[in-house]
Amino acid sequence: MAQPLPVMFLADADGDWQVERISPVSGECLLPASGLTMIEGDSEADADGGVWCLRGVTSNPRYTIGAELKKLTSVSPLLGRREASCAALIPIKKSEVWWAMAQDERRAVFEESSHHIARSIKYLPAVARRLHHARDLGEPFDFLTWFEFAPEHRNAFEDLVGELRNTEEWIYVEREVDIRLARD
Amino acid sequence: MAQPLPVMFLADADGDWQVERISPVSGECLLPASGLTMIEGDSEADADGGVWCLRGVTSNPRYTIGAELKKLTSVSPLLGRREASCAALIPIKKSEVWWAMAQDERRAVFEESSHHIARSIKYLPAVARRLHHARDLGEPFDFLTWFEFAPEHRNAFEDLVGELRNTEEWIYVEREVDIRLARD
Repeated sequence: MAQPLPVMFLADADGDWQVERISPVSGECLLPASGLTMIEGDSEADADGGVWCLRGVTSNPRYTIGAELKKLTSVSPLLGRREASCAALIPIKKSEVWWAMAQDERRAVFEESSHHIARSIKYLPAVARRLHHARDLGEPFDFLTWFEFAPEHRNAFEDLVGELRNTEEWIYVEREVDIRLARD
Repeated sequence: MAQPLPVMFLADADGDWQVERISPVSGECLLPASGLTMIEGDSEADADGGVWCLRGVTSNPRYTIGAELKKLTSVSPLLGRREASCAALIPIKKSEVWWAMAQDERRAVFEESSHHIARSIKYLPAVARRLHHARDLGEPFDFLTWFEFAPEHRNAFEDLVGELRNTEEWIYVEREVDIRLARD
């Protein structure tokens, strides 16, 4: 676990990734844009342009226990694989009820009931994933999850997203936007 | 649990609190200053002045389980009590080894071994406490803990701080500064 990495997602007319669609899942959607760029590191200067800009930071694991962390680390690929020309950015905001819950209560919903880690690990290494925390930064979303996968794993990714949205954990999701991306 | 509250601690020649001493506990100390002001809410404009400025944000509980949270909530006083004319700000940075540990491993050190919550709760409501998270903000410290107490509880506060510094958890503290304050 390195130092937290600040990451900015900048939506604009152009970008490193072409936006295929921006779909509202729960609550207010984000404005349409045709390009998206992920900017790693501190870059306040870039935040002014663009149609919208979301910021997050990679951080330490919040629910993952030792055995899960070991397994995740062993099968998680790096981002930027040549064949992974599909991506998704899924910003999520959870309810105040979720955030008021104690650590063991959130963990019980997250994993013991919803199997968030167990479900996700089945899709590794096909679907690379990086979680960015945003709530403590005063951002409109609590989490920005970034996924990268090859075109042949599009259906697998749909399965993963569909599974998670049917869990008890998702009762606490009050805003969610699903942004699908591709690059040449 | 309300929305995360951004809080800034601004050290300068003057301030709402008079600085009694700034003591290095581990690692590099902070520069001397004679006054300190705690500023709640967003206030980027104020960050330019001052001898030093530390920022943090209140957030959701990270280790506290349900029974502990219930007990803590029932005995925790608000800040700003008239009789609480003594305060302390203790900024802490933990090691990379700490942050690389899984959630259950950190919880085991934090509470099952070090009894961080059980020790602290004994000093409530005498010693009011508010934790601010700073690591994900890119700040030099990971946590800024703020304490307020009446002069007759000075010794109790020394006991609390001394107890915690002797725990297994403190093996992972690589930088700590102890700032003591008073107001009229």
